[in-house]
Amino acid sequence: MADREAVNPPRTDARRHHDPDVRGFASDNYAGAHPEVLAALALANGGHQVAYGEDAYTENLQQVVRSHFGPTAEAFPVFNGTGANVVALQAVTDRWGAVICAESAHINVDEGGAPERVAGIKLLTVPTPDGKLTPELIDRQAYGWEDEHRAMPQVVSIAQATELGTVYTPDEIRAVCEHAHAHGMKVHVDGSRLANAAAALNVPMRTFTNAVGVDILSLGGTKNGALFGEAVVVLNPDGIRHMKHLRKLSMQLASKMRFVSVQLEALLARDLWLRNARHANEMAQRLAEGVRAVHGVEILHPVQANAVFARLPHDVSERLQKRFRFYFWDEAAGDVRWMCAFDTTEDDVDMFVAALKEEMAR
Amino acid sequence: MADREAVNPPRTDARRHHDPDVRGFASDNYAGAHPEVLAALALANGGHQVAYGEDAYTENLQQVVRSHFGPTAEAFPVFNGTGANVVALQAVTDRWGAVICAESAHINVDEGGAPERVAGIKLLTVPTPDGKLTPELIDRQAYGWEDEHRAMPQVVSIAQATELGTVYTPDEIRAVCEHAHAHGMKVHVDGSRLANAAAALNVPMRTFTNAVGVDILSLGGTKNGALFGEAVVVLNPDGIRHMKHLRKLSMQLASKMRFVSVQLEALLARDLWLRNARHANEMAQRLAEGVRAVHGVEILHPVQANAVFARLPHDVSERLQKRFRFYFWDEAAGDVRWMCAFDTTEDDVDMFVAALKEEMAR
Amino acid sequence: MADREAVNPPRTDARRHHDPDVRGFASDNYAGAHPEVLAALALANGGHQVAYGEDAYTENLQQVVRSHFGPTAEAFPVFNGTGANVVALQAVTDRWGAVICAESAHINVDEGGAPERVAGIKLLTVPTPDGKLTPELIDRQAYGWEDEHRAMPQVVSIAQATELGTVYTPDEIRAVCEHAHAHGMKVHVDGSRLANAAAALNVPMRTFTNAVGVDILSLGGTKNGALFGEAVVVLNPDGIRHMKHLRKLSMQLASKMRFVSVQLEALLARDLWLRNARHANEMAQRLAEGVRAVHGVEILHPVQANAVFARLPHDVSERLQKRFRFYFWDEAAGDVRWMCAFDTTEDDVDMFVAALKEEMAR
Amino acid sequence: MADREAVNPPRTDARRHHDPDVRGFASDNYAGAHPEVLAALALANGGHQVAYGEDAYTENLQQVVRSHFGPTAEAFPVFNGTGANVVALQAVTDRWGAVICAESAHINVDEGGAPERVAGIKLLTVPTPDGKLTPELIDRQAYGWEDEHRAMPQVVSIAQATELGTVYTPDEIRAVCEHAHAHGMKVHVDGSRLANAAAALNVPMRTFTNAVGVDILSLGGTKNGALFGEAVVVLNPDGIRHMKHLRKLSMQLASKMRFVSVQLEALLARDLWLRNARHANEMAQRLAEGVRAVHGVEILHPVQANAVFARLPHDVSERLQKRFRFYFWDEAAGDVRWMCAFDTTEDDVDMFVAALKEEMAR
Repeated sequence: MADREAVNPPRTDARRHHDPDVRGFASDNYAGAHPEVLAALALANGGHQVAYGEDAYTENLQQVVRSHFGPTAEAFPVFNGTGANVVALQAVTDRWGAVICAESAHINVDEGGAPERVAGIKLLTVPTPDGKLTPELIDRQAYGWEDEHRAMPQVVSIAQATELGTVYTPDEIRAVCEHAHAHGMKVHVDGSRLANAAAALNVPMRTFTNAVGVDILSLGGTKNGALFGEAVVVLNPDGIRHMKHLRKLSMQLASKMRFVSVQLEALLARDLWLRNARHANEMAQRLAEGVRAVHGVEILHPVQANAVFARLPHDVSERLQKRFRFYFWDEAAGDVRWMCAFDTTEDDVDMFVAALKEEMAR
Repeated sequence: MADREAVNPPRTDARRHHDPDVRGFASDNYAGAHPEVLAALALANGGHQVAYGEDAYTENLQQVVRSHFGPTAEAFPVFNGTGANVVALQAVTDRWGAVICAESAHINVDEGGAPERVAGIKLLTVPTPDGKLTPELIDRQAYGWEDEHRAMPQVVSIAQATELGTVYTPDEIRAVCEHAHAHGMKVHVDGSRLANAAAALNVPMRTFTNAVGVDILSLGGTKNGALFGEAVVVLNPDGIRHMKHLRKLSMQLASKMRFVSVQLEALLARDLWLRNARHANEMAQRLAEGVRAVHGVEILHPVQANAVFARLPHDVSERLQKRFRFYFWDEAAGDVRWMCAFDTTEDDVDMFVAALKEEMAR
Repeated sequence: MADREAVNPPRTDARRHHDPDVRGFASDNYAGAHPEVLAALALANGGHQVAYGEDAYTENLQQVVRSHFGPTAEAFPVFNGTGANVVALQAVTDRWGAVICAESAHINVDEGGAPERVAGIKLLTVPTPDGKLTPELIDRQAYGWEDEHRAMPQVVSIAQATELGTVYTPDEIRAVCEHAHAHGMKVHVDGSRLANAAAALNVPMRTFTNAVGVDILSLGGTKNGALFGEAVVVLNPDGIRHMKHLRKLSMQLASKMRFVSVQLEALLARDLWLRNARHANEMAQRLAEGVRAVHGVEILHPVQANAVFARLPHDVSERLQKRFRFYFWDEAAGDVRWMCAFDTTEDDVDMFVAALKEEMAR
Repeated sequence: MADREAVNPPRTDARRHHDPDVRGFASDNYAGAHPEVLAALALANGGHQVAYGEDAYTENLQQVVRSHFGPTAEAFPVFNGTGANVVALQAVTDRWGAVICAESAHINVDEGGAPERVAGIKLLTVPTPDGKLTPELIDRQAYGWEDEHRAMPQVVSIAQATELGTVYTPDEIRAVCEHAHAHGMKVHVDGSRLANAAAALNVPMRTFTNAVGVDILSLGGTKNGALFGEAVVVLNPDGIRHMKHLRKLSMQLASKMRFVSVQLEALLARDLWLRNARHANEMAQRLAEGVRAVHGVEILHPVQANAVFARLPHDVSERLQKRFRFYFWDEAAGDVRWMCAFDTTEDDVDMFVAALKEEMAR
């Protein structure tokens, strides 16, 4: 595509302000969009389409989503992950509801307080060793439904893959769902990296969502190769009403929704979602292997999706950050997070590992 | 572009689901994206860029926005108009604040209650003949600042152009700002169609915003030719703090923000914003002229931007709607709204007027 | 009681800071508590009672309330009128819900924005001549249930008696209820002066509430002679759940609830509620009669409950306010509100009318 | 008083529904009102007083409160503890603000989610051994002020006495305040049992509040012997604005505020607050001493205020609960809480200890 652009660049007053050949390990959000996703936008463009979701692309998306999640699934495209999570959680809570989640959950630590501020939802958090909830851990917060002094636990929210790069097995999610349902609670999956989990488990996405009892899902597109765009997917419609109103009042209703839906179609219609996720995971495995060979660097969690968490000397990290962008996860402890994306190359990984070795050796 | 795509279509698993040659008069949100905007996305793609707004495109956007609105302006890209408005209004209200606006304002009638629900803001509405507030009309709600039984009026919010397709003169906005400021209130402009107003007035956008005292602005991109994307523009930074936190907790923070910013750059860097708006306005003028020649159809408001409001027999509207998509505005009264977009053609207008004549004659 | 106190005053470190013989016409909230209500507090005092509503007084209150409103009624004591209204409205709205009410409604003009701020509820207001809604007036806002761009009208809220001192007939409320129910909406009555309405109509309270279809009620105690205390009364329990959670999260749960409940018992167990209301109404009638005889003073609304609205020269009002406390209602128009309370005396009224005559004659 | 009532009972239609001689150890909220507080209500009754806080009792209360907390203190009477806390926290947070508190804090575990639901505030919790925060513990959440992905820590909220019956020394609170202020955060004290802390420390209340840097205070009345009523006390007015608006929109504005203020006057004007608190604390000490002599019962926290936490066999607790009302604190662990109130008698304690011994011996 770059070649063709060089020959015949599309006209625009915008200019390129960055080097498209520089990549790092800071976040899968630092990557751009997959070219096939970008190409899909042009397909959806031109002519008039009904705004706010009554367009042909959003209609078609329902079939695509059902091919993954079964005939009861309904997708509601939204803008971003925070929006997907907060819309989804509102759909399964009452005004008095609370959500049980891991202390390390994105909804707890990285949404700027949106669940509390926008939706008035109290999060009942549980410390976990690896970002994963279990029935036993859920029980630390699952009580007091009839006690008006306590926000009522109505939902268990888990992330698949987790913020720590770990992946639940289908049986683990089944156990969470059975436990939650036995207490009258729903289960929400924050799936901003659901594709990475599917790639890691090597099973269809439904195998660890609706097949094991998940009620509602935030299905990620952005980290999987879209420019932007996620979907709230209602898997079990029991008791869930007026999602369109919820999405609108939550300020997540795209007017030209065809441009969200067609991106999700580009990812999900065949296997781009899986190719992207599998590649990112493989790069994380390659990175982990490389890192394991470096004396003095400890890998902190099982590397199951596209994240590698490591502990290394603080000064080494600081020097390395001058060469490749990445974040401290727990700066005091010396813990860092390295993320791989759909566009991470083997060379990127190998150069990074080499640089790590150099800096460790100084 | 269509030719080149035919020869060498970019690969994607998505398919085209609509006829790109069909357009109507329902909404400027029914239009797609301008090709130059779409082209800009490819420029911004590739490589890694810091997420959440620390990218080069968002940085560059500040210069672009300042070239329009002066050196104190700061732009905060967001996803959609509801988001822009609710973030902007939160920036200039306290927990106890209220917003004075026209009864017909989009924030009052078309945001699904988001200002109240997300931001807890009470809207103090005033009926207007033409969608425009004046100092006299503002005074119907501008009182009781010290009365704790009343949500405190802290902001006057006007739309430019208005929901009724009318346009404030710079002097009219100056009068609103002076009146609001004299009472200690800020002024917000909902500028989802600010470009159309500038085109109508044939002056720079600053002439009727910061030059006359506007404090904060929702600057529209979507209706002006973007796929999606608006910006909250702080014009007067006095007393406005932590916009980034507000945007995040309002779920309007794009991770891959470069793709919002580069669209706004494509529109605003030179004159695409104005070309698009001017064209849409001209089509509305052409439409109004055509309609005025049709006996029995009454044009309801001055046609100043890209909207034509008309009153005609209900059955005629219904027959016409089978040929061209558009909305009733007040179905009981027989009022309809016809919107022109950047991609409306002269032929579109002429065919529509001809069809209107036919249906009126039946 | 005053005599006995003089002989044998109860010991307390508090002192009297006001003249218990001075009364005005500013508000029925300016009155203190009826001595029988005060006496009831002592009955409920002493010993331990389960907190937060599991006490014997709150249990007994259910029987008392059911004697008025029938066997399905359930009362939830709260602190104040704002709290009662906002708890009640939350009970019958979803997150996306809106409430249709008169523009002059207390919930719209006098709650400091609490419905919007605490409950996220949008109020859809309708101008009325006399504070009363009708099916026709309701229809000005009753539409668009399926339109996600509009907060969904789920409740009609009326006040009985209204903010303007007018009283709905039972048939008028029945018409409101039938109309609301036909559209799937519930009906809430703000009954901070329900007793005054019953006294005016000379019928039991149930006759114009559950007997005609009202779903939920804010039942006033404070203006009826309590120190503080109201109750949300659920009349039609269909679809209303977890009121105790709603009350708690709305910060309206009294720990020593026996002291709220026993006040309501003192008012409602026999006829104190009616004696108080009837007396206040009679004083308003006496006042209206006296005022009608004063040339140049116009009475503005039908005097049906305990309020008299009048229009008189602004300077007269200002001189009169130096002698008796009362409020302007619309200062620009010269409109004032005179309220009578359970403790207003015939002498109070007669002295006030005499003073009015004097000031008009100056 | 009981005698006089027997001779000449005040007339009321309410009846006594409980045995005023039965007390337990469940909660200081189970106690009624101190007779001197009840007597104060009669003083404030009669005549008209301006509603909503412009009355002579509320004005006088300011002097009383300043005699305790110094000349910058301003008191805002409210209904209950939840209301006091949520109003106070809103006063010192922006829309993007978060509050650091102990995991065991009442605002976290016992407000039904009101801080999140009503005020949109995220609580950043820290596990503590004894309910008390320290600078080190605060640091576990005190970071990321510039990170928009994190609700901004703006306040540290501590309880004095804590939910676990422990009491901060003045120096401990000073350290919390200095640490919080050094990070630009305010300090809120939840003082629903502030009097008990003062009694325990044997110092004036100011010694561990404004004298050591506390910014805002929830001052408890209910647990100290009032029927209901607390006050938000602004100690450091810097940056705190429009408290009256906040109180109103939080539905905590009493119309007949004289009846709240006079209760607080009765408690605070001389030493009733201290007599009540000291007595309750002494009863807790007596109880702890008695319990320590019972083999097999473990006291869990230092007994410093009016609470005794103990661990004992579950079946013993269950048998004991049939004789005296009290609560499990952690039922799985066998932990219980025994609270003493202003009206707990030595006999109550001795009978309870005797019963405990009996049940342990079975």
